[in-house]
Amino acid sequence: MSSSKRQIKLNAFLMATGHHVAAWRHPDVPLQAGLGFAHYKALAQTAERAKFDAVFLADSVGIRDASASRTLHRSARVSGFEPLTLLSALAAVTERLGLIATVSTTYNEPYHVARKFASLDHLSGGRSGWNVVTSSNEAEALNFNLDRHPEHALRYERAREFVDVVTGLWDSWDDDAFTHDKAAGEYFDPDRLHVLAHQGKHFRVRGPLNVARSPQGHPVVVQAGASEAGQALAAATAEVIFTAQQSLAGAQAFYRGLKAQLAHHGRDPEGLKILPGVFPVVGQSEQHAKEKLEELQSLIPPDVGVALLSTVIGGIDLTGYPVDGPLPGNLPEPNGPKSRFRLVTELARTEGLSIRQLYQRVGTARGHWSIHGTASQIADQLQQWFEEEAADGFNVMPPTLPGGLDDFVTQVVPELRRRGLFRHEYEGRTLRENLGLARPANRHLLARDLKAAA
Amino acid sequence: MSSSKRQIKLNAFLMATGHHVAAWRHPDVPLQAGLGFAHYKALAQTAERAKFDAVFLADSVGIRDASASRTLHRSARVSGFEPLTLLSALAAVTERLGLIATVSTTYNEPYHVARKFASLDHLSGGRSGWNVVTSSNEAEALNFNLDRHPEHALRYERAREFVDVVTGLWDSWDDDAFTHDKAAGEYFDPDRLHVLAHQGKHFRVRGPLNVARSPQGHPVVVQAGASEAGQALAAATAEVIFTAQQSLAGAQAFYRGLKAQLAHHGRDPEGLKILPGVFPVVGQSEQHAKEKLEELQSLIPPDVGVALLSTVIGGIDLTGYPVDGPLPGNLPEPNGPKSRFRLVTELARTEGLSIRQLYQRVGTARGHWSIHGTASQIADQLQQWFEEEAADGFNVMPPTLPGGLDDFVTQVVPELRRRGLFRHEYEGRTLRENLGLARPANRHLLARDLKAAA
Repeated sequence: MSSSKRQIKLNAFLMATGHHVAAWRHPDVPLQAGLGFAHYKALAQTAERAKFDAVFLADSVGIRDASASRTLHRSARVSGFEPLTLLSALAAVTERLGLIATVSTTYNEPYHVARKFASLDHLSGGRSGWNVVTSSNEAEALNFNLDRHPEHALRYERAREFVDVVTGLWDSWDDDAFTHDKAAGEYFDPDRLHVLAHQGKHFRVRGPLNVARSPQGHPVVVQAGASEAGQALAAATAEVIFTAQQSLAGAQAFYRGLKAQLAHHGRDPEGLKILPGVFPVVGQSEQHAKEKLEELQSLIPPDVGVALLSTVIGGIDLTGYPVDGPLPGNLPEPNGPKSRFRLVTELARTEGLSIRQLYQRVGTARGHWSIHGTASQIADQLQQWFEEEAADGFNVMPPTLPGGLDDFVTQVVPELRRRGLFRHEYEGRTLRENLGLARPANRHLLARDLKAAA
Repeated sequence: MSSSKRQIKLNAFLMATGHHVAAWRHPDVPLQAGLGFAHYKALAQTAERAKFDAVFLADSVGIRDASASRTLHRSARVSGFEPLTLLSALAAVTERLGLIATVSTTYNEPYHVARKFASLDHLSGGRSGWNVVTSSNEAEALNFNLDRHPEHALRYERAREFVDVVTGLWDSWDDDAFTHDKAAGEYFDPDRLHVLAHQGKHFRVRGPLNVARSPQGHPVVVQAGASEAGQALAAATAEVIFTAQQSLAGAQAFYRGLKAQLAHHGRDPEGLKILPGVFPVVGQSEQHAKEKLEELQSLIPPDVGVALLSTVIGGIDLTGYPVDGPLPGNLPEPNGPKSRFRLVTELARTEGLSIRQLYQRVGTARGHWSIHGTASQIADQLQQWFEEEAADGFNVMPPTLPGGLDDFVTQVVPELRRRGLFRHEYEGRTLRENLGLARPANRHLLARDLKAAA
């Protein structure tokens, strides 16, 4: 084991009952998982004991499957905690674990978002991260005074400005602005307070933020968009990428492409960590892992499988087609993200999969990399992706919870450690320190330095 | 002690360094109070050991005193936690204490607010409360794409509709909607899911909420507006009122007036608890209490005192007038709430106070009831207000933190207990149970019952 060797970064992507679409039906999964704080507390503490970088939460401000109403009653994803309240509570029962929440830029205001993540960063001593999404769920629009979801390009344009406003608000105060001089009656030095006064196409935000600059300077900015606009946003602003990749070659192309784009923004490739999602089914033997996966697959009701596949490929209705027949060739254009659509249709064509086989494939991990095998076999694959420029680490998506996380932590993590690929102890106190990301300087200080140097 | 006797309700209104405007300069107040989670955790646990009903947090989505920039650097209120993230963290380190956060209806969307409070209610096992405000701070508008604060009547019209949407979203699911039937693959019963489909003047919100109905049915709705529109909103929707009252007679008039208004809405007077703010300075003797108060008053810099008074009376600039002279008679109309303006100008006239005396009076508690004395003297006054129809309890505003809360808890609370006026143990597990408020039925069940009876 070499301690100076580049290390795998690991997030635990927690989703109530687990990532498999039928996980909630598994006998080991607790009934009240979605709204059980004790359940999440145990998961977070498991991830922390294993020295994961962070827990990661997805989000949607609306019921994601509301359109597929025929099978909605079979879904465990209709009800759960709001991520920022949940992570704030988890901050109080953990000490080193990073806390990453998804928040949409399409249905929020930057002042609220800047403030909540800064507040969480203070609460947790520098462990918060924001996964920036523009929402892919039509149903959200209907909860926010709109008839329909704004179009893709507009959402990304807004997101770019949104992130700029948020990071600007995080720089409202210099790190040393608060002098707390009781004798002089000076609580802060007014020269170290900065008014943003942002005037843009989508937002007018004066500031300053009513939260001091946070322990990390900026909470870590995460991004998950795979479209061209998503990648452009990521190259400009993200420090961690969560991405759906199915193959080593595809992941390598994505990894190299995105790292190359950083140069256009004057950014160091080390300043962006790329973490593909991975859905690992761990068994005592390869056969055991296969049986565990098949047990889960057998729990998917066909109507749910077909509806799920429809959602993944962008809302295209597949009911009526024979479940054991092929995916029809002449499908209309998807409403949702095109990247997922292309991924799935290509998979169907290349491997000649039926609709049932396809929904079983997609159902396991919603387009993410699904692997099963022994701890050693899984570690082999993670190591290969990590060492061959496909990943800086992984967003681990346990098939069931808590069992799937326990399996990974007790079997795969020790294997990665034996290979010198994963930490035995946290390197730092903040998420940023553990991920190996620099603490950003305040943009106003940068401006001051440039002025002084001129 | 009679256990069936009507009991005083007590909230601890926590404000970082304490409620006195110069509290942060007091030698006993910690420097990092505003963003110290350990500080708040200790305060909440103190309140819980003392069996307080709840902690209460104010809020502003902007720096409240940004206009009074001459003295802004002397204020400790420019930076602090965002209330919902803080209360979520406190939920994880307390078990019975209620958790009430202020959230403005003017700069938020009802879906987010409904969701976050429902999430907190689940996290805490039924302990969340929402203090509905319409914001009185012009600076907030500038952080949300506006040039100015919407006018008062419009804010209250929006607030009424906002509360209606939020409570409607909280009823998205019947209490028993989630059947979790693993064998049948039915996670919930679709007949027990309700789509709100709200279409109003200010909001169009389809729903349903993506959070199950919470332990309290509805988080407790708190309201603090004192204007006519504020009282009308409270009579229609609030279950707890936080109010600023200076005199027994004034408090009685407010109490009786508001309880009488409930009848117009078919509401039981017991369904609304009226809690005036109280700023208590507790001493071993009356003289000791007076000295403690004077010590705090001496810490107010005159420029801060004058600016504070200006803010309280609605943004009217008082700089230039002699500090030891009277309040000028011909002041312009205030921009802010008129109730505070009237309260202060009447106080000045009745008691012939100078500007300095007036800001000292107002500085202690920002228009709230300020009392000082021994524990017994303070208990006498609280008892009188409680027994003579002026209050159902109090929102306790400690002058300094943690000292002011410790004083109240170790000295006044035991005195109230000796008199049989305050609980020895929590009556219930939820905030609603402890406050003696009924759990609201789901509006959709009510509709169903009416239909069945017809």
